[in-house]
Amino acid sequence: MAAARASGLVVPRPVTFVTGNAKKLEEVRAILGNSIPFQSLKLDLPELQGEPEDISKEKARLASVEVNGPVLVEDTCLCFNALKGLPGPYVKWFLQKLGHEGLNNMLMAYEDKSAYALCAFSFALGPNAEPITFLGRTPGKIVPPRGPNDFGWDPIFQPDGYGQTYAEMPKEEKNKISHRSKALDLVKSHFADAGYTFQIDSV
Amino acid sequence: MAAARASGLVVPRPVTFVTGNAKKLEEVRAILGNSIPFQSLKLDLPELQGEPEDISKEKARLASVEVNGPVLVEDTCLCFNALKGLPGPYVKWFLQKLGHEGLNNMLMAYEDKSAYALCAFSFALGPNAEPITFLGRTPGKIVPPRGPNDFGWDPIFQPDGYGQTYAEMPKEEKNKISHRSKALDLVKSHFADAGYTFQIDSV
Repeated sequence: MAAARASGLVVPRPVTFVTGNAKKLEEVRAILGNSIPFQSLKLDLPELQGEPEDISKEKARLASVEVNGPVLVEDTCLCFNALKGLPGPYVKWFLQKLGHEGLNNMLMAYEDKSAYALCAFSFALGPNAEPITFLGRTPGKIVPPRGPNDFGWDPIFQPDGYGQTYAEMPKEEKNKISHRSKALDLVKSHFADAGYTFQIDSV
Repeated sequence: MAAARASGLVVPRPVTFVTGNAKKLEEVRAILGNSIPFQSLKLDLPELQGEPEDISKEKARLASVEVNGPVLVEDTCLCFNALKGLPGPYVKWFLQKLGHEGLNNMLMAYEDKSAYALCAFSFALGPNAEPITFLGRTPGKIVPPRGPNDFGWDPIFQPDGYGQTYAEMPKEEKNKISHRSKALDLVKSHFADAGYTFQIDSV
């Protein structure tokens, strides 16, 4: 069993990253590397309506009860400025039902095609711990789809300062500037600062 | 204490109708009359994402646990046909952030302005009972706002066969054809068929 550092909490397990999305998992693995010991798990959790941070915290609370241990959960929003941040947390339904063209059509009435991709990770040490939330945000604009169509709305989001959509960018390039990597950088910093010790041999 | 009818279940309390919206409560009172003994209660319940019927059932489950007794919950959707039923259960966020003009703008890219108002009531006898859901649906179209602006999206929804929006119609007229009254008619029929007996003197 690993010994606790003087400053850090002993966490009795690796962190469970809750996702059923293979592409998200791949990105999280690529960004986190070996910095945090984690395993992934698909859980069928209820998804709430509301503000992104609240949705994320509540998901972490529910997940940590299910897992009975430390969890990391992730939520992604695509927020159109002309629509005051909507479709935001509901983007997956709009993508599922209307596709890339439909998402572009939602902005037909507006000159302003600017948007931001928002990622919220929440970490809870366990069922009774208050989750901590880490937000990453990348500004850009909504464009007609370009690039491979294998990861959500990536083909219609072009980050500011780039001539390519998320979908067109090489993964390493995207992972340097994406909303997800920005949020994960905060997660990594938190873990480094907190100095948690994981009893990974207990699993 | 009221005696149970041979055919019906004895319900140990009046039904708690969960709402914090005075206008909804007023409509429900006007439509239900004295057919079902109920009291209203504002509960701060988490609101889920998903299909309208699932959202409604889950809300009834959560409410019946809180109340520890029979509950009736209500959810309303405004579904645009061109948007495959969206914004649907998320309409309140779109209304809150974008107003009536913003809701009209969502259809700018489409000729088809048709829509339907959908109401889901779910009734649960108690914390361990499976909720029963009653759906009412009124077809119409989305129009620029007309009429008093005191009840949600009523000014932009014009039911088929009428020259007035919900907001312009006299209440009695609206209550004859509305999504809410159609769902409540099903609720009333269910209560009549089930022959529940309410121990209303125990409250």
